[in-house]
Amino acid sequence: MPRRGKPGEPLQYEKVMTQIIHLIETGSLKPGDKIPSIRAMTRQLHVGHTTAVRAYEILEAQGWIDSRPKSGFYVAYRPDNRIVEPETYQPETEPTKVSIRQLMSDIAQTSGDPVYLDFGLAAPVAETLPLEILKRTAGRVLRHTVPEVFLYDMPPGLLPLRQEIAKYAVHWEGRIAPDEILITSGTMEAIDLCLRTIAKPGDTIAIESPTFYSFLQILEALGLFAVEIPTSPKTGLDLDAFEHTLKQQSIQGCLLMPNFNNPTGALMPDEQKQRLAKLLVQYQVPLIENDIYGDLHFGEKRPKPVKAFDEDGLVLLCSSFAKTLCPGFRVGYIINHRYQTTLQRLKYSLSVSAPPLWEHVITDLFKSGQYYRIVKQQRQRFQQLMTHYVQTIHRYFPENTKISRPQGGFLLWVEMPDPINALELFTQAFRQKIIIAPGPMFSVKEGYRNCIRLTCTTPWSAETEKALKILGTLAKGCL
Amino acid sequence: MPRRGKPGEPLQYEKVMTQIIHLIETGSLKPGDKIPSIRAMTRQLHVGHTTAVRAYEILEAQGWIDSRPKSGFYVAYRPDNRIVEPETYQPETEPTKVSIRQLMSDIAQTSGDPVYLDFGLAAPVAETLPLEILKRTAGRVLRHTVPEVFLYDMPPGLLPLRQEIAKYAVHWEGRIAPDEILITSGTMEAIDLCLRTIAKPGDTIAIESPTFYSFLQILEALGLFAVEIPTSPKTGLDLDAFEHTLKQQSIQGCLLMPNFNNPTGALMPDEQKQRLAKLLVQYQVPLIENDIYGDLHFGEKRPKPVKAFDEDGLVLLCSSFAKTLCPGFRVGYIINHRYQTTLQRLKYSLSVSAPPLWEHVITDLFKSGQYYRIVKQQRQRFQQLMTHYVQTIHRYFPENTKISRPQGGFLLWVEMPDPINALELFTQAFRQKIIIAPGPMFSVKEGYRNCIRLTCTTPWSAETEKALKILGTLAKGCL
Repeated sequence: MPRRGKPGEPLQYEKVMTQIIHLIETGSLKPGDKIPSIRAMTRQLHVGHTTAVRAYEILEAQGWIDSRPKSGFYVAYRPDNRIVEPETYQPETEPTKVSIRQLMSDIAQTSGDPVYLDFGLAAPVAETLPLEILKRTAGRVLRHTVPEVFLYDMPPGLLPLRQEIAKYAVHWEGRIAPDEILITSGTMEAIDLCLRTIAKPGDTIAIESPTFYSFLQILEALGLFAVEIPTSPKTGLDLDAFEHTLKQQSIQGCLLMPNFNNPTGALMPDEQKQRLAKLLVQYQVPLIENDIYGDLHFGEKRPKPVKAFDEDGLVLLCSSFAKTLCPGFRVGYIINHRYQTTLQRLKYSLSVSAPPLWEHVITDLFKSGQYYRIVKQQRQRFQQLMTHYVQTIHRYFPENTKISRPQGGFLLWVEMPDPINALELFTQAFRQKIIIAPGPMFSVKEGYRNCIRLTCTTPWSAETEKALKILGTLAKGCL
Repeated sequence: MPRRGKPGEPLQYEKVMTQIIHLIETGSLKPGDKIPSIRAMTRQLHVGHTTAVRAYEILEAQGWIDSRPKSGFYVAYRPDNRIVEPETYQPETEPTKVSIRQLMSDIAQTSGDPVYLDFGLAAPVAETLPLEILKRTAGRVLRHTVPEVFLYDMPPGLLPLRQEIAKYAVHWEGRIAPDEILITSGTMEAIDLCLRTIAKPGDTIAIESPTFYSFLQILEALGLFAVEIPTSPKTGLDLDAFEHTLKQQSIQGCLLMPNFNNPTGALMPDEQKQRLAKLLVQYQVPLIENDIYGDLHFGEKRPKPVKAFDEDGLVLLCSSFAKTLCPGFRVGYIINHRYQTTLQRLKYSLSVSAPPLWEHVITDLFKSGQYYRIVKQQRQRFQQLMTHYVQTIHRYFPENTKISRPQGGFLLWVEMPDPINALELFTQAFRQKIIIAPGPMFSVKEGYRNCIRLTCTTPWSAETEKALKILGTLAKGCL
């Protein structure tokens, strides 16, 4: 037990805590940084081993630091209490025919143009990709897997890859068989196939609000109606509101991102996922679950998808390797047993084959263990980048700007004071060759007019900081 | 002038003709084979130069042989009059809700399984692909085009590739600008995007009968109705019937393959294409034209697509490199100006990016001139193979079997005597590890019960001949 100090004076372990919290609050220790070991701390602050252990235990319990087995202690991501996170949004809950404008394809046109600093596209940039490993692996596959890489690979897609994906599902306690998996040309094709399988034109699909703009476009293209459910930028879908909607309306399916939502970064807690899974069964509503950011968790544990709680085959998990490996592969997948036959038939008639070369490359990266190493590296990279971005936005953006604090992925959701118009900010930033994704893109009714989504994949540099500073200045000018 | 023989005796030049026709009819000279030069012929048959020239002129006029500038004379493909071609089909012309069964995805599952001899899948097989060139080019691109090949390539797709496609269109007298081209993930995605652009669920689309089964599936998936138009296995769509339908019904678009139709191999003559283009304008009906086999012409001249006669932007030409280069690339394209904005936006939201590595590889093959060389080689290869197939089918199949005589592509349409059931033949052949595509797959009402489609890409060997002989024997057993 730590020895007690004089009355009124802080206890020894509290001194240790204060010291560390100070270092974190002033930014000397940043989220993800390693903090001194218990041994080093006892020497530095002249306290006993038990005192230091107790201080670290409490810091961990309070969420300031994380312990990593055999590695030591690290500054945790969450509790920077000065930075305020946005609250749950309350969209209108009547179904609305989706209608989106040109904006995003305009933005897409500039993608890859080095003149622009792109915080708009939700993708890793070249500098953050494991290019050498990808190139080497692709070269090897190309030398050894001819003719297969030049032929059709028919649905459900390459068996060894499906086996690796099934094995990998153990990370979220999934018990998946390779024949429950269908390989697709990326996540969006996966979602398109799922929507066509579970719904027909005129049907209503429940989505989060805000939600990923391509979801809105894909619903529109299929003639589907969307009903927006209130969503917290911290914990995701408001399940009470969702249940209320299920009771009131006829919903044929839902399309959600419970793990590191796009655009908010929200992470739905496990008990809520469990409740969601039960609601799906109760109302017999299938869920298309986009889990594309699930592997990019900052904490030790890979969050479970809702699929982990799915006993009825109502969850169709969609994902790909675009965020963890690279966008150019165009290889995604659907995990679902119940609808597998229909999904395969649709895939066959709509796009015939998966891209065989990249299927083989990804299989190779799994088998060699490289996938695990790359993902670990990317998680750390994005966590560090996000910290820089959050602190810099906090510094330069108008007072009372709220910033989401995602525990994974690489997307930030920034809510600025009310008079600021994100579309105006977009236009002004675009003139300065900076791209952001304005809030109205993420809702049917073009709400979130004072919000923007920022992708934190551009490496940290003076230029990056300057761009964020310009954005902040422009935002202040909109006030 | 050739000198005259005795009365009743054949003229000298007739003797030369008889000699050559005999060689062709008995199979010693096969379509595509070079025939002796005029000079050699004068020596061999002891006739004068003028006699030989006259004989060759008449043989050419009668369609037995073709002259190729600077190369000599070759046995022509067409006029093997013993083999009867199928006639125009008369499907019911009422719109029918498309509903296709499991059959084709079952067949797809066996694809690539070396146990099966696959005449079912419409694709080149490994042995007929230019693997070394593809491998070498892909390796080079991989070494020199990082990071691009690992990033998203946003719609409309790689500019240098669109430039090459635009240049290539000169082959069919197309004047196309790169910004009229959208790169897709293969032809089927191209067609899906086009259908979603020009039609909405419940609309009616005119198709050929028989037609490619994936067209039926894609129409079904989009909730579209199909109206089948009578189609000749020789000259394609019956335009009188088409015009009649346009007058009678509300048609929102048509989906056709005027060049080397799948499944019949039909080639629509230029004047009919011109008339079709006029009808489209008159009734303001867009045409989705699948031109995927257009480059694989056996004759000297690349047939024009209907797009070549399109002045109103109503033709959306779809194609890819799956039949000419290799199926595994998953790179296709749409040529159309009128609907370009909608098409691009849809492509972006439905599948984000084209596959960048293969876009670069194809560009490279165009720029180096390899594409032209490969296509020429493939045309000759498929023409020769098809000749073998036609003659062997003629030999082993039941009497009165009709066989299409395509002037390009690699698909044969075989119409067997009426009592023969193609589905039964499929099942029996499948047990013997031979795959064919039965006729009922190619129509809404599952007609063509006595027809099959055969893909002629498996290289010629004793085994190939044996498989066709088995098919013929099984067919006779079905009588």
